[in-house]
Amino acid sequence: MTSLDSATSPTPGPDVTELVVGVLGGTGDQGRGLAYRLAKAGQQVIIGSRNAERAEAAAAELGLGVRGADNATTARESDLVIVAVPWDGHGETLASLRAELAGKIVVDCVNPLGFDKQGAYALKPEEGSAAQQAAALLPESRVTAAFHHLSAVLLQDHAIETIDTDVLVLGDERAATDLVQALAERIPGMRGVFAGRLRNAHQVESLVANLISVNRRYKAHAGLRITDV
Amino acid sequence: MTSLDSATSPTPGPDVTELVVGVLGGTGDQGRGLAYRLAKAGQQVIIGSRNAERAEAAAAELGLGVRGADNATTARESDLVIVAVPWDGHGETLASLRAELAGKIVVDCVNPLGFDKQGAYALKPEEGSAAQQAAALLPESRVTAAFHHLSAVLLQDHAIETIDTDVLVLGDERAATDLVQALAERIPGMRGVFAGRLRNAHQVESLVANLISVNRRYKAHAGLRITDV
Repeated sequence: MTSLDSATSPTPGPDVTELVVGVLGGTGDQGRGLAYRLAKAGQQVIIGSRNAERAEAAAAELGLGVRGADNATTARESDLVIVAVPWDGHGETLASLRAELAGKIVVDCVNPLGFDKQGAYALKPEEGSAAQQAAALLPESRVTAAFHHLSAVLLQDHAIETIDTDVLVLGDERAATDLVQALAERIPGMRGVFAGRLRNAHQVESLVANLISVNRRYKAHAGLRITDV
Repeated sequence: MTSLDSATSPTPGPDVTELVVGVLGGTGDQGRGLAYRLAKAGQQVIIGSRNAERAEAAAAELGLGVRGADNATTARESDLVIVAVPWDGHGETLASLRAELAGKIVVDCVNPLGFDKQGAYALKPEEGSAAQQAAALLPESRVTAAFHHLSAVLLQDHAIETIDTDVLVLGDERAATDLVQALAERIPGMRGVFAGRLRNAHQVESLVANLISVNRRYKAHAGLRITDV
């Protein structure tokens, strides 16, 4: 088995340095964290929000050339769009952006979870997963799923230079998943690992409920590594 | 974040060296691999099968003091019973062993999967997961779930001394999950990590479909590590 500390990319990826990356829900913790990491790595990033002013304010706070805009403008002006909106509202937001997202690579990183006294548990979307819901609502887009297991705390901690984790990338189109893997690998410490088709996205999304249990038990910000790759 | 190559146990566990471990489905690849690793680590192991002769033959082949018996005898004579039977037959086998498994720790490691031309996909048991089905059928047992993501190929390869992977352990009773974590850690390279209640077992079981995709893409025997623990 490959040693775990040699987590180098299993496949050399395409050049993604010129891609403009939009982040829908970019004013939330996860979206803002991803926007920060990608911009810091040199990517052009637009933060999207329903409220353009909030997006602009979040972008100004991040610096690094990040712009802010309403969701529709963000989708239109980006080559690749990360969906980091809350699960509640996911379908409605995407349905409203179908035209703007046509032809774009969409990266869904939404985890449909419920919470009660015992912690988090998986919700099962009618379509099977958040990613499959996105694919159903955006038939002209190239829908992938990735970036589910990142700690928003670590992403946003400017004192941390390296995020030691694998990013599981799912999708039905090889060229799209290759691009998303390469994008993940722009962030120091991250490695993109292809992990199956969209029909197997539900368990990847839901595994966040388990990572929340890990975090509670061990006071950690848990991530994942795939061994032997 | 903790370095990945220092995958030491997050919690010192109870002493499990004297536990007799039964493996139902111990003549299958996964069961035989686990029996081999646990026996090699010094654990007393009984391989169970519907057919006692097949179990005895598999045990004789493994050596290391492993015994073979029919499933009911295996359950009766073990302190902790690993369920490694095929998903097809899982419920029937467990229902028939309710009396023998009463009071025992049961470790379900079954992954309900379907297969077609596009590879593996998750099946959704009526109870939510294989582990929840076990808990429903065995109300007097202490049901946990673990050992889902181990490569049967690596487990059975006698040339490999160390299995570098984390074992996600799920369950609703702390004392039981602590024992199962400690048992996993008897095997060199393995670390037991608590990963939530049984209601969050489905995604852990189903993630094997993703690891199968990883294995296909990268010609690997993929396992998991949890970072920052």
